[in-house]
Order: sequence, then C-alpha cells, then structure tokens
Amino acid sequence: MPELRRDPVAGRWVVFSPDRLRRPFDFKWTNQETDFFEDNPFLPGNEGFTPNEVYVTREPGSQPNKPGWRVRVVPNRFPALRIEGELEKEAVGFYDRMNGIGAHEVIIETPNPRLALEDQPLSGIVEVLTAFRSRMLDLAKDMRFRYIQIFKNVGPMAGASLRHPHSQLIAIPVTPISIKHKLRAAKNYYETKDRNLFEDILRNERNSGERMVYENAGFAAFCPFASRLPFEIAIFPRRQSPYFPQTSDHDLVLLADVLKRILQAYRLGLNSPDYNLLLISAPLRKPRGNSSPTLDQDFRWHVEILPRMSGIAGFELSTGFYINPTLPEEAARFLREVKTDV
Amino acid sequence: MPELRRDPVAGRWVVFSPDRLRRPFDFKWTNQETDFFEDNPFLPGNEGFTPNEVYVTREPGSQPNKPGWRVRVVPNRFPALRIEGELEKEAVGFYDRMNGIGAHEVIIETPNPRLALEDQPLSGIVEVLTAFRSRMLDLAKDMRFRYIQIFKNVGPMAGASLRHPHSQLIAIPVTPISIKHKLRAAKNYYETKDRNLFEDILRNERNSGERMVYENAGFAAFCPFASRLPFEIAIFPRRQSPYFPQTSDHDLVLLADVLKRILQAYRLGLNSPDYNLLLISAPLRKPRGNSSPTLDQDFRWHVEILPRMSGIAGFELSTGFYINPTLPEEAARFLREVKTDV
Repeated sequence: MPELRRDPVAGRWVVFSPDRLRRPFDFKWTNQETDFFEDNPFLPGNEGFTPNEVYVTREPGSQPNKPGWRVRVVPNRFPALRIEGELEKEAVGFYDRMNGIGAHEVIIETPNPRLALEDQPLSGIVEVLTAFRSRMLDLAKDMRFRYIQIFKNVGPMAGASLRHPHSQLIAIPVTPISIKHKLRAAKNYYETKDRNLFEDILRNERNSGERMVYENAGFAAFCPFASRLPFEIAIFPRRQSPYFPQTSDHDLVLLADVLKRILQAYRLGLNSPDYNLLLISAPLRKPRGNSSPTLDQDFRWHVEILPRMSGIAGFELSTGFYINPTLPEEAARFLREVKTDV
Repeated sequence: MPELRRDPVAGRWVVFSPDRLRRPFDFKWTNQETDFFEDNPFLPGNEGFTPNEVYVTREPGSQPNKPGWRVRVVPNRFPALRIEGELEKEAVGFYDRMNGIGAHEVIIETPNPRLALEDQPLSGIVEVLTAFRSRMLDLAKDMRFRYIQIFKNVGPMAGASLRHPHSQLIAIPVTPISIKHKLRAAKNYYETKDRNLFEDILRNERNSGERMVYENAGFAAFCPFASRLPFEIAIFPRRQSPYFPQTSDHDLVLLADVLKRILQAYRLGLNSPDYNLLLISAPLRKPRGNSSPTLDQDFRWHVEILPRMSGIAGFELSTGFYINPTLPEEAARFLREVKTDV
C-alpha cells in the first residue's frame, strides 16, 4: 500500500509508492528516456498492457480497450497512489503518516506516438482538454480527495519516461502547501483591496504588454514578472473561475488555441525544450478552518508552462529561490516573434 | 544590475542576473556538462581567469592568485548577485522588486580537477569546511544580508556546469520562505513541547536505527522519514547549535568523516549519482516581527544531500509534493552495507 509521510521540519508530504519501488540496481537507466515502440503501452493494439480505460473518445463501432480510440484515459500501471481503501491517518512515533489513497491516471493524447500536442488540429487538443475536465468532475465526487493536479512532463529533464504524448492526473487527500500559499495570497489580496489578484495581474500585463506573448477572447499567455525559469509562461483565463472543470466548451477551444501557439513557439523558437505543463485549479473542498466565502471571487485557475533547459540546482532546492538568467520581457519579445501555424 | 522580483501569487522571490543572461540561441549547450580542461578557470595557472581570491590556504612562500593553493575561494565570474550597492526596495506597478545585492562565491576545493571531495584525505575535507565557516563569518558582518546558503552541485542533473570539484556560497538580503517554514516548525515545536525538534528526531532515529546510515561522536547521518528523493541523507549535529559557523575545529573533523563516508557510499553503491549538498544554517538576523528569544534552543543547522537520479517532474514542481519510489528504511539498509574507506 502506498504511504504518505509528513516531514516534521519542512512540513511537506511525500508519497512513497512501493509498486513503483526501484531497488538500488534499478537506477542505472533512469537518466535515459525510453523510446521503445514495440513495448510502448500507449500504442493502439497494446491496450492490454494498461488497466482498462476510464474515459475514451472512439471511432463509431470500435470496441472498449481495443484500437479505434482518439483520446484514452487509463489508471497508471505503476500508480503512485491507490484508489482503494481508507486514509487511516496515524502517528508513527512522532511522525505523521497516512495511507497513500488517491488516483493516478494517464491521459493518452493520441494513438500516434509522434504527434505532439501542439501539432494536433485544434479539435484534437480540445478532446484532450475535455478529457481533463471530465476526469476532474468524476474524481471530485470522491469525498476523500482534496486536490487534483493535472500535469504534462515532456522529455527526460522534465521527468518523463515515455515519449508517446500523454498527460497525467493525480488526486490527493491533502491540499499541498504550495497551493495553500496561493489561495492565501489571493484571499488576502481580495480582503485588502476588494479586487481579484489574478484580474489585476492580467490588467497590468495587458496594459504594459511587455511580457505578453499571445491572447485571444478567452485567455492571455504571458511571461510572469517573477518567472522562475527562462521562457516560463502563465496562461490566465480572462473570465473569473476558481475551478478548471467549470470551463465551457467554447473556452476549451480558446485554451487549445493558446496552448498550440505557445508550444509551437517553444518547439520552433527554442528547439523543442523539455517542459512541464501544470494545470492549477482550486482544491475540491475548502481546507479545515478556512470558511472563506470568497474563494469563488478571489482565486482563479491557471496554467503554468516551465521549460526545463537547465537543471534545478542546489540553491533552488534548498531555498525555493530561483536564479533566472533571462528577463521575462526579453523572453516574451522572443516568443512573440516566433512564426507559428496559429 | 541584478534584480530580485517577488511573485505576487506564490510569494517567492526570483533572482534575475543579466550578467549570466543567456539569449535564446545560447540554450543549445546547457544540457551538457562542460569538461574542458585547458579553459578550466579553476586549474592552477588559470587564476587570472577568476576574480581575486577572498580566502585561500596556500603552500608557504607561494604568491596570492598564483599556483600553490590547496583551497581557494573567489567571487563567481558570472555572479547571480552583486556585492556593491543598496537594496532600493520598490514597487513596480503592484509588483515588488529590489536590487540584486548579495554575494556569490565559489569554493574551489582542490587544485586537482579529478579529486572528488570524498577522495580527499580528512584534512583536505576539513580545509574545505573551514573555508565555508570562514566565509560565512566574514559575510555575516554585512548588515544587508539575511541568509547565507552554501551548496554543492555535482553533475548536470544537479545543475553543475563544471566538473572541477567546487562548492558555492550565496548571501541574500531576504530569508527564503522555505527556511522560514523550518524556523517556524522548530519554534512551534519548542513552544509546545519545551523540547528541540531536531534533538527529538535524532533520538528517534538513533533508537529505531532503521534509517541510520552512519554516526560518530559529533554527527549522525540518516535517510529522513519523509525523504523527497531516493537515498536522500540528512546530517544532524549531535550538539545543539543554530549556526554552522559556531562549529568547532574538532567538530569539523567529525563532519568531514561523515561526509567522506556518505559520499563514498554514493559513488561505490550507486555508481556516482549526480547530487546536491545543502548546508542549512539559521538566518543571520532575526526576521522582522520575530522577536523569539528561543532561536538558539529551537533551530539546529544541518546538511541535506539529495541524489539526482531522476528528474524533478511536474507534479513535484507544482505541489511541492514529492513521489519517492524508494523507502528510506531500504535506502539506509543499502547505504549502511556499502564498504568504504571510512
């Protein structure tokens, strides 16, 4: 059974997942990205290598867990967390632990192992985003879960182990500290100023324009004022909403348009950097002791895209203080000028 | 002039360092570790490639900034922060910034580019630790600085760009959030229990023994209960002290012994993984609003060593929630059994 343990000094939780357990002699290969196609569990025809699908879009007449799908969501074969069981929060000595209850799913974005997300037609990207929305709505019904993270790791520097285009979803029973910080900052801002922090950032960025990269009627993509990494992108929805799953079909098309524009600019302008894409949405339930009625007004879901062109080093790991050699104003100017299909 | 910018949502500060600025076309090489020896600025004879030394141990009769040194500390050629100037904290729109005032130094641990820290005789490791102590004591006199981080990045996965054995020191004008969390946890624990958190962890680990790897009269090295990464190590001093620079000559020898044992176990048992070594000491000055008289009792300096055998992925970056496939009990058992010179 996977286990969550809390560090008594740093306050962070760590997931221990024995099913993914690697022994010391298993670590030789982990710096390389596997690129094997015969054994690729995400290929059509290899559906038997994965657990059964929990969401799928398919061609009419095709069979469940057989070829004919376009987007396929399956539980991770080596899940970091298990869906069955109770949390059983308990003390071990003076340490805190609980069972590693949660969901860990893989969103296989296409049957074509070489078709990157940004090269799909808009309708294909929309199908992937619709799968995200559907899985979040379904898992939010499970009262044990507090927070759902959707993320996409591309390339070995970003922690990916398979090239076949895919995203992941993890549902966890606690709200992470880093998310709590964002919620608190948004709440404090709203209480002090009676204005939404994300809306004020958006207005500031649209007015100055120097960090803006692309926008359409629904979303704006810009390099944040305090970007951690070179060419980091934030995508904010222009309409207030704390929860990604509330996004309309129409807005998913507009989000797909922005993602296509940004990820193509990375590939064409920066020579396909490894990257992480993070979808950050409000927790499913309000944390204990937080009876704020303002969450709907103060926090806004958003996307962060972090190119991983250099390693995250000791100073950053220890202090959370990043050193960035590239100003976001310069990164934005460069990304704006890259010619893409969009 | 380097600049510090604060993210209004996450609350983190980011250092922008134009002297280290890389343009988009400079990013091609950054995934590779450079290994050039002629141009290596840390080689004896190449002292002219670096700024003048601020600390050194030398053979009798040798000249400053010439060969004959054993440990040499110089300002970083491409510093993330500048030592000259005032902070000039100010608002830019509603964003917060200040000048990137600070110190960024390199501790060149040996003239021999192939002599890893763990392969030096104990006396050599002690000379490196003595350099750390001396530089911290000197920089602590500068009233602009709040926190000093000493760290060692080894290998490209850990963010290193040169193989020649070296460590780094960064002094910054703010206390990082992650350090504030640790201070607060230690203070709360002490106020609640009237006991030191680090002492209680140490007692717990020594009693159970299952996560202990090595100890001597001054220090204990163990795999933390909530290790973020496989084979992570924490080294706690057995005597209470918040500040690393208070460490005695005698205790530096004992610390050198533990470092040699652990780093040799990594090399021999885990096939030389990339790693980060972090030395975490209390802030130089108490943050505003914290008039706690207990810091000397509640917080203890410590070392963290993080092997970087796989990438830090999107879930970790977003949530601060690590997924670790290796239980610390198993990692410790493995590291205990590796035969080393110590």
